[in-house]
Amino acid sequence: MGISSDFPIWDKLTSQQKELIEKSAVKRFAPKGTLLHNGSADCVGLFVIHSGRLRAFIISDEGKEVTLYRLFEHDICLFSASCIMENIQFDVTVEAEKDTELWIIPTNTYKQIVENSAVVANYTNKIMASRFSEVMWLIEQVMWKSFDKRLSAFLLKESDIEQSDSLKITHEVISHHMGTAREVVTRMLRYFQSEGMVHLTRGGILIKDRKKLEKLAEE
Amino acid sequence: MGISSDFPIWDKLTSQQKELIEKSAVKRFAPKGTLLHNGSADCVGLFVIHSGRLRAFIISDEGKEVTLYRLFEHDICLFSASCIMENIQFDVTVEAEKDTELWIIPTNTYKQIVENSAVVANYTNKIMASRFSEVMWLIEQVMWKSFDKRLSAFLLKESDIEQSDSLKITHEVISHHMGTAREVVTRMLRYFQSEGMVHLTRGGILIKDRKKLEKLAEE
Repeated sequence: MGISSDFPIWDKLTSQQKELIEKSAVKRFAPKGTLLHNGSADCVGLFVIHSGRLRAFIISDEGKEVTLYRLFEHDICLFSASCIMENIQFDVTVEAEKDTELWIIPTNTYKQIVENSAVVANYTNKIMASRFSEVMWLIEQVMWKSFDKRLSAFLLKESDIEQSDSLKITHEVISHHMGTAREVVTRMLRYFQSEGMVHLTRGGILIKDRKKLEKLAEE
Repeated sequence: MGISSDFPIWDKLTSQQKELIEKSAVKRFAPKGTLLHNGSADCVGLFVIHSGRLRAFIISDEGKEVTLYRLFEHDICLFSASCIMENIQFDVTVEAEKDTELWIIPTNTYKQIVENSAVVANYTNKIMASRFSEVMWLIEQVMWKSFDKRLSAFLLKESDIEQSDSLKITHEVISHHMGTAREVVTRMLRYFQSEGMVHLTRGGILIKDRKKLEKLAEE
């Protein structure tokens, strides 16, 4: 199976563009935990995800992390080619959150196509608008929601992504997603447990009262 | 003077595109305080600023505000035409922060051009990347900087924009820019005054020790 079945707007490309991409794209397997893109330090190209999951996040000087968004099957990672996008003045780090198979379209190939194609340029715009929207959601959460609401929204989103009420996730990992201290996460999860919303297990969290969590998240 | 001298990539447009814009763009005067765009409720078109200053911000359900960025002469406001951009799922409010003269390019005109022009689509991308970068800067500030550092950075930025050490701004307005309570702003400004960094006057703030503020902001 080639990149044609993974690249979202394949049918809208010209045959010349298709040929160029097919000739230059390489498939890569990234085991869970692989650092695929590290801020402005590299610029390997556009990632197109075949299977698995990527996590895009930012890191503070002190090593604190905040998750910006996740990328799934057929999603495109733009910021791994950010060097060709003028005016991008921030660093995003991207890692494989699960074992991931992805295509890499080299920076030069993509640059050559986007500069001459209104279709590809507008599609790039659409992807950027999507990521922008996720970051705006995050800013609204951080500015205006208390931590209990943010944490309940986070647990519900994780449960939705994993399609399970049983989350295999440590308090430490949650603290990296949310940009807070691990102790704060633990304290709030214990409170959630005392309220019957979750049950804490070794290395995991079981969602017990989804409705109560939803009500808290939406307040 | 027509829109040609205000629109940033005028020279790169085809004569047909130029004609279309010149025919449909209207000039408008917005006195200080005018609400020019209100979230997803309207979609009048692209703003191109001739003179003055616009402020883009978000508002919480409780009416709290946070400034995202400012727009100056020759800047383009994209989000006032956000209805034609797929995947924009957030509401930005835009107001005239000073008396402002601006061009409005109607949504349909812009849509017609961007769909067929790689040049305009890539330029749109560049603008969005710029705004995205400003919002990422904000998120890093909010997540990782204490309020004293954020406030000192804010005062320095204001002083830079106004080209003056004497800022005519109330504590209330600062609280709207920064998304905090007015009391928190007042308390921190008094601390800054006790440290000799600023002098508080009726309805204004005088920067007394720029170096000390800069050091605090950069820590």
